[in-house]
Amino acid sequence: MKNTNLPSDNIAYSNIIERTSIRKFTDQNINDTFCEAILHAAMSAPSGVNLQPWEFVVIRTPEFLKELGEALPYSASVTNAPIAILVCANRRRFLEGDDSTLWVQDVSAASENILLAAHALGLGAVWTCIYPHPDREDAVRRILPLSDDFIPFSLIPIGYPAATHAPINKWHPERVHNV
Amino acid sequence: MKNTNLPSDNIAYSNIIERTSIRKFTDQNINDTFCEAILHAAMSAPSGVNLQPWEFVVIRTPEFLKELGEALPYSASVTNAPIAILVCANRRRFLEGDDSTLWVQDVSAASENILLAAHALGLGAVWTCIYPHPDREDAVRRILPLSDDFIPFSLIPIGYPAATHAPINKWHPERVHNV
Repeated sequence: MKNTNLPSDNIAYSNIIERTSIRKFTDQNINDTFCEAILHAAMSAPSGVNLQPWEFVVIRTPEFLKELGEALPYSASVTNAPIAILVCANRRRFLEGDDSTLWVQDVSAASENILLAAHALGLGAVWTCIYPHPDREDAVRRILPLSDDFIPFSLIPIGYPAATHAPINKWHPERVHNV
Repeated sequence: MKNTNLPSDNIAYSNIIERTSIRKFTDQNINDTFCEAILHAAMSAPSGVNLQPWEFVVIRTPEFLKELGEALPYSASVTNAPIAILVCANRRRFLEGDDSTLWVQDVSAASENILLAAHALGLGAVWTCIYPHPDREDAVRRILPLSDDFIPFSLIPIGYPAATHAPINKWHPERVHNV
């Protein structure tokens, strides 16, 4: 079913619904200003008790990108990206009790902000999942110098899209329940 | 530290970094078009294996909003909102093995999209956390008619902001690590 009544003239709104996952990139590099802007957007996410439990590893070294892509089939697209951001959680800023896993929500919101900021800047990106896969986490630790306090969460290659495609229509009105 | 080099003329980008949590709302209602647009933005989030494990309960009944606000101190702001969206996960669309908790990441991305879409439309919202608090989940189940398959995840009141405030500066360059 198509939703035909969207505020598509609203640029900020459209950025959210037009974002797609991009896995193939051109050779063009990303300038430092854009990279920093994307990281700033990530840090603008909300977090439980405003603890901001995130850390961001910006990977630009071609050998690291190649090794990660080879070790992580699900993240193979990092191999052809000029940069990738590894979103991590820092155990030193975790809550306790029922909230001990709340950091997953925080770093997920930060990851989504990275995808949306990249799209807003004319770049493409894709969220590839490291956590909660112990084998993927181990592979990342073998390749990258990573503090023991950091839990590698998502690996997001970013670059200029080699091709763009229309977003899949994921509007499912049957998943809306009114009370 | 302030980050002074942002593409602040980029409307889609600025929407991400200027969003703030809004907890007080005017009496003005939200029209159905805006509500549907926000839900469409939520469903535009990425999800593991594109499973879209989310469900959205739109709460408009004043008695439900009042009861939820009273039962959930952390979500007290729902009491003065014209609507709230309860983001849920549907157990029937969960993965298995290491991926069995991946749905948390998916519904987190959907929750963040709700906040950003609301801000893009001139509305305010705040992510209040239900999962993983069994006591909060029980309170929601006592008040709302909810399928056993649904796990209540986040409760997001939405309305026209009674007041706006500048976003907190959360830019921490020391959380960026270059490799």
